[in-house]
Amino acid sequence: MTSPVGLHRVVAPPGVLPQAATRLDADPAIGADEVRIAVERLNLDAASFRQLFTKHGGDGAGVRDEVLEIIANRGKMQNPVTGSGGMLIGTVEEAGPQSPLGLKPGDRVATLVSLTLTPLRITDGLKDWDGTSEQVPARGHAILFGRSIAARIPDDLDPELALAVFDVCGAPALTERVVGRYRQPNVAVIGGAGKSGSLALAAAQRAGAGRTLGIVPVEAERDRLTAAGIADVVALADARDPVALAAAVEGALGAKADVTVVCVDVPGCEHGAILSTADGGTVIFFSMATSFAAAALGAEGLAADVTMLIGNGYAPGHADLALDLIRTVPAVRKMFEQRLTAN
Amino acid sequence: MTSPVGLHRVVAPPGVLPQAATRLDADPAIGADEVRIAVERLNLDAASFRQLFTKHGGDGAGVRDEVLEIIANRGKMQNPVTGSGGMLIGTVEEAGPQSPLGLKPGDRVATLVSLTLTPLRITDGLKDWDGTSEQVPARGHAILFGRSIAARIPDDLDPELALAVFDVCGAPALTERVVGRYRQPNVAVIGGAGKSGSLALAAAQRAGAGRTLGIVPVEAERDRLTAAGIADVVALADARDPVALAAAVEGALGAKADVTVVCVDVPGCEHGAILSTADGGTVIFFSMATSFAAAALGAEGLAADVTMLIGNGYAPGHADLALDLIRTVPAVRKMFEQRLTAN
Repeated sequence: MTSPVGLHRVVAPPGVLPQAATRLDADPAIGADEVRIAVERLNLDAASFRQLFTKHGGDGAGVRDEVLEIIANRGKMQNPVTGSGGMLIGTVEEAGPQSPLGLKPGDRVATLVSLTLTPLRITDGLKDWDGTSEQVPARGHAILFGRSIAARIPDDLDPELALAVFDVCGAPALTERVVGRYRQPNVAVIGGAGKSGSLALAAAQRAGAGRTLGIVPVEAERDRLTAAGIADVVALADARDPVALAAAVEGALGAKADVTVVCVDVPGCEHGAILSTADGGTVIFFSMATSFAAAALGAEGLAADVTMLIGNGYAPGHADLALDLIRTVPAVRKMFEQRLTAN
Repeated sequence: MTSPVGLHRVVAPPGVLPQAATRLDADPAIGADEVRIAVERLNLDAASFRQLFTKHGGDGAGVRDEVLEIIANRGKMQNPVTGSGGMLIGTVEEAGPQSPLGLKPGDRVATLVSLTLTPLRITDGLKDWDGTSEQVPARGHAILFGRSIAARIPDDLDPELALAVFDVCGAPALTERVVGRYRQPNVAVIGGAGKSGSLALAAAQRAGAGRTLGIVPVEAERDRLTAAGIADVVALADARDPVALAAAVEGALGAKADVTVVCVDVPGCEHGAILSTADGGTVIFFSMATSFAAAALGAEGLAADVTMLIGNGYAPGHADLALDLIRTVPAVRKMFEQRLTAN
């Protein structure tokens, strides 16, 4: 039996996890619990693409050659400078008899694990890509492990919409789980008008929140979130200003929040989130800009008896849950579609 | 009424929390919910002292002058380079009638909130300190806010022992709380022979853990922890090697841990801790070397359905709980005393 986390695919250095490996084995022959995907498109991580594009001074051919070289050398697409990857779309070619992923040949899927740990081989020289966009049409194959995550792209939704939802589907799943542990908690979502924020608001409401509050930084977002009607209250605040944020939350809810969900990708929101949360409450940090030390020391300095969760992008059924919210809450779907149109 | 988190003591810049302030007001006149402490000794943060000592090339008088200057300028002891402070010992001089801290004049206390947010004035020119040690005999006063934390130094324990316990008392408190949410969980403490680790092991056992495992990096610690008898099993592993750590945990417990407590202050332990934890389990990160992004992306990449907690140094009653463990578990007390003797 092969390793469910892909240890058997690590070529170098020996003994590390696939994400930390410098080189993976992208052999198309699959193990009993693996799945092989025929690649259709890579979505490069934005930070990775920006680094490559800048390095090559906007020369698309140079970017393309380097991406090809990275994948050939590493057996995966992981930018050696940024460390980041991206995700891919493709069609299942073969599923091992013991794969737990529930996929079958012909399924069109998006991988929800990073390209940084996904064995990948490109066979068309990326000839259909001009190297000037993160969207990379590609032919080749990728391997999923027993514990990889891939989501079927549903027939009833625009694939772009589905991908945008998959990208943040961990947020509504964990929000639902935490809200369900309280009895009608007041929930504040910092960055409530964004992708993860709007899904978190919808998930909180469905999970039995008392009142929901969306905090946004600018008037345009306030108007948009108010019009969507997916939060009971909407308020303006700079999340990096702890005193102002806490005042906005207490002003809007009449008390501190029982559950605070941080969905804004800017540094310095830890203390405000802690100060906005009631004793016995929970803060969920989804922002990758979160500082572990700022959160830990901040709670101690404020003598705040709050539970602080590192937002885990995975929970069983997270993709289906998020798609279901998109299907059943038209206002959230509309916010996503407006955002896609604007891009 | 004054602000329970000390906003009224912030001089500059306006509107920030005391920890982020460049200058606090250390006026000895206290508000209704404040407490004034007569200072006896400052314990400078190790990183802060090291920076000052190096900067002044080991010249104690230079170190002393700079510490005096920092405190005079900032109204608190916060090293402008490291950003860190330390804690202090003193005696309560006056407690406001509405202070919730339960302190009375004459109580000898240690502050459990950082010096970085504690208004402080020095009146003796630090004349009894030679500037070559983190332990600073001092005369002056400090102010505690409504939500500050201070612990009475107990009569029955060596003050040095009590301070060492206070320093890590958040770990056993949160461990107890999390273990209590499971039914006889298996608990793995990474770094089980250290201060926070040994208290976490004792707390887990008392909170109803099934089996407890202490993971240590070297044979000397293995022998010491085994002799102490505070873990059901002790195993050797390098916590920075995810595959080796998970193998050690599964080998020792016969399964992944339900609760994994990370108490080692080295970077790179996130993936190993996640990989060592069962689905539905919880990882508590107490190490300040924890990377938020490594934990969040690691769990997603491993499709690990684990709850990840940022170790909060505060919980109500945490100091008393830790002292109680020291008093009732002689083996833990002995480990602390050996460590103090060795220093």
